[in-house]
Amino acid sequence: MIAITLPLAQTGQDSRGGACCAPIVRQPLSEGEAVELAVLLKAVADPVRLRLLSMIGSHAGGEACVCDLTDAFELTAPTISHHLKVLRTAGLIGSERRGTWVYYWIIPETVNRLGALFTPLRNP
Amino acid sequence: MIAITLPLAQTGQDSRGGACCAPIVRQPLSEGEAVELAVLLKAVADPVRLRLLSMIGSHAGGEACVCDLTDAFELTAPTISHHLKVLRTAGLIGSERRGTWVYYWIIPETVNRLGALFTPLRNP
Repeated sequence: MIAITLPLAQTGQDSRGGACCAPIVRQPLSEGEAVELAVLLKAVADPVRLRLLSMIGSHAGGEACVCDLTDAFELTAPTISHHLKVLRTAGLIGSERRGTWVYYWIIPETVNRLGALFTPLRNP
Repeated sequence: MIAITLPLAQTGQDSRGGACCAPIVRQPLSEGEAVELAVLLKAVADPVRLRLLSMIGSHAGGEACVCDLTDAFELTAPTISHHLKVLRTAGLIGSERRGTWVYYWIIPETVNRLGALFTPLRNP
């Protein structure tokens, strides 16, 4: 066991003190919460999107140019763009065009929400 | 910020010191890891399965009888069984028949793996 300090969001409490992202071991999810979270999980439940997310998240400086992402895949640029759009629509990444390229970064609040959901704070 | 103590697995290191479950913000996932994790995520990317998982995980004593789970849904018993089987096949829950009923419990290692994946240890 080691002790680390976590952002408050990761404990399952949001800024409203609500339970939108309480760990699944704490209390049953409501139907609405489950529907909303399933949409988010479907966005990441794809190998290409998981790899894109990890490439963006781990990139030096916390953001990646689309030009940094395409070479790792044997996929067309429109296919990569489609996957990036799914991640962006789900609120997992942000993007901005600067000159020729579009740059992407992780939105930590959304990623934290998934992390908090699957964080058993105790062993059953 | 608050400080809590987490199991080692949650920090992204497995027992082999490997990176199977390193947070996505730490390093790019390999193709193999991404394929494996996408299978796990597809298993939870469903509102009924998310609710089942949270009902099992938060149940008193850390396990739930199938008889505790069915009433919350307007679904047939075979449909609930199908969803429970998907969660069990993915290694997210364990089960055991005792007398009339089957009992289910969360497998924390697998849930922790998802939690670790979506745990940014730093803000980009």
